[in-house]
Amino acid sequence: MKEYCFGIDVGGTTIKCGLFDVKGTILDKWEIPTRTENNGSYILPDVADTIADKIREKDLDRDEIAGVGIGIPGPVNDEGEVPAAVNLHWGYVHVVAQMERLTGLHVKAGNDANVAALGEMWKGGGAGYHNVVLITLGTGVGGGVIHNEHIITGSHGAGGEIGHIHVTDSVDADCNCGNRGCLEQVASATGITYLANRRLAKDAAPSVLRDQEVSAKSVFDAVKANDPVAMEVAEEFGKYLGTALACVAGVTDPEIFVIGGGVSKAGPVLLDYVQKYYKQYAFLPCKETLFALAELGNDAGIYGAAKLVL
Amino acid sequence: MKEYCFGIDVGGTTIKCGLFDVKGTILDKWEIPTRTENNGSYILPDVADTIADKIREKDLDRDEIAGVGIGIPGPVNDEGEVPAAVNLHWGYVHVVAQMERLTGLHVKAGNDANVAALGEMWKGGGAGYHNVVLITLGTGVGGGVIHNEHIITGSHGAGGEIGHIHVTDSVDADCNCGNRGCLEQVASATGITYLANRRLAKDAAPSVLRDQEVSAKSVFDAVKANDPVAMEVAEEFGKYLGTALACVAGVTDPEIFVIGGGVSKAGPVLLDYVQKYYKQYAFLPCKETLFALAELGNDAGIYGAAKLVL
Repeated sequence: MKEYCFGIDVGGTTIKCGLFDVKGTILDKWEIPTRTENNGSYILPDVADTIADKIREKDLDRDEIAGVGIGIPGPVNDEGEVPAAVNLHWGYVHVVAQMERLTGLHVKAGNDANVAALGEMWKGGGAGYHNVVLITLGTGVGGGVIHNEHIITGSHGAGGEIGHIHVTDSVDADCNCGNRGCLEQVASATGITYLANRRLAKDAAPSVLRDQEVSAKSVFDAVKANDPVAMEVAEEFGKYLGTALACVAGVTDPEIFVIGGGVSKAGPVLLDYVQKYYKQYAFLPCKETLFALAELGNDAGIYGAAKLVL
Repeated sequence: MKEYCFGIDVGGTTIKCGLFDVKGTILDKWEIPTRTENNGSYILPDVADTIADKIREKDLDRDEIAGVGIGIPGPVNDEGEVPAAVNLHWGYVHVVAQMERLTGLHVKAGNDANVAALGEMWKGGGAGYHNVVLITLGTGVGGGVIHNEHIITGSHGAGGEIGHIHVTDSVDADCNCGNRGCLEQVASATGITYLANRRLAKDAAPSVLRDQEVSAKSVFDAVKANDPVAMEVAEEFGKYLGTALACVAGVTDPEIFVIGGGVSKAGPVLLDYVQKYYKQYAFLPCKETLFALAELGNDAGIYGAAKLVL
């Protein structure tokens, strides 16, 4: 009888770890540093060691452990192989094979953004649904597509890379990906700042944004204070993200969109702007698709990783 | 031991039927008329009768029949229920329950465009691949998304409705779906005609298109004859479709895009225009995703329907 599982979220500076029961209750949560030296070769052994320590500390029966799920900041194929992960200083690593050898446990691996989507489906903003798309609005825009409770990895590991959907010809700089006009350039924290500065430079319209540092947070704070310029910026952001999600609906038609990341701390007002344009552009049967804010914050990755092995 | 299966493609005027062996070799192919009178209530009994006749004619052992797959021109959920199918004069019909009762065989049902995508994956332009997106450029633009050999139906039956992705604000008429600026309005046969007429009206630039009826066929014939106006139209078409497919790649990241429907008879030149813009806008890991023309024509539906039950 399997009772427990581990969820591991490997980041560039820390590795978040969780011990769960198979119903998804978190029993313990801790972090270890990510040692990227020596081509990141200590990372998986460190994870194996901290799991072994926890098994001893909690006096767990290894036969009761369903396995270890692990999220990696890079592309991961369905077999658990990573061709490269820049932030970990990794070249090719077969995460599942190496971790199974190190731990003697069943292991599954996935891309961190996709795994976070699985976490939000399981215990977060998408709980109760099986077809969920997570959009993470942070420094960049990440995403994950969950279909019948499984991650759509994609044939080049690019499933759910919603941040690089082309949404506008109006941007005059390249995206980090090399293209131009990606959703990430106008809907991430950086992108909203770009839109706000572009709007402010257009004319001298009064705005509270002129008296402070412009950021995604200051834009949405100004929206809540009915600042007309900030509201124009929010409309433009909402049009880009709403249109992009209407495209996504025409591909996989999820039950619910869950929006997370730092920008989503703006709260329900953000959803209002996105849904306005989503409803305008979505295909008729999808116009009432649900929207929710993410709920697990930085823990989405460990929840989703745990769910991988269940 | 299962040896045979039936693939049925129900259209608004005829019902295409195929008898296949389980390896996908077509053994017989025939059609019966679609009787839409009396709210289409004769349609499924007619299908059951023609299957029973074929079983007798071929002296098949019912134990050797894997089942009956059936494609329907309307939304079909994963249980085989159809809320309504306008072209069949249907309201709610539980296709799988009714057909299993009528035939005594295992039955699966799917939307016709999605089922055609499965057929092209199995034995057509996408043969050998498991993650395939089919785009059908006909009077409208249809689509189907196949993920790990299974159709993504979507939570409102709108999976693969690529024709209603918003691609432009430049269209001055509504789409049949009620939105404006859908891919279907600029990439279907009708859409290409619209683009060509719009371009011709812009100025008096000489073009062979001015001396004949404008159609998708005449546009691509003129492209092959290096007509500069037709080539401009093909560029615009290619930009819309290429950008839309780059969006699709950012959602499910298929191995191959298969393009079918009447417009695809233009041949490889059509793929050239689409791939040019696809490569410009696709996320880096997806830029080399394959493109192919559909190969099964009107038989894609019966192949895909047969594959549903295997």
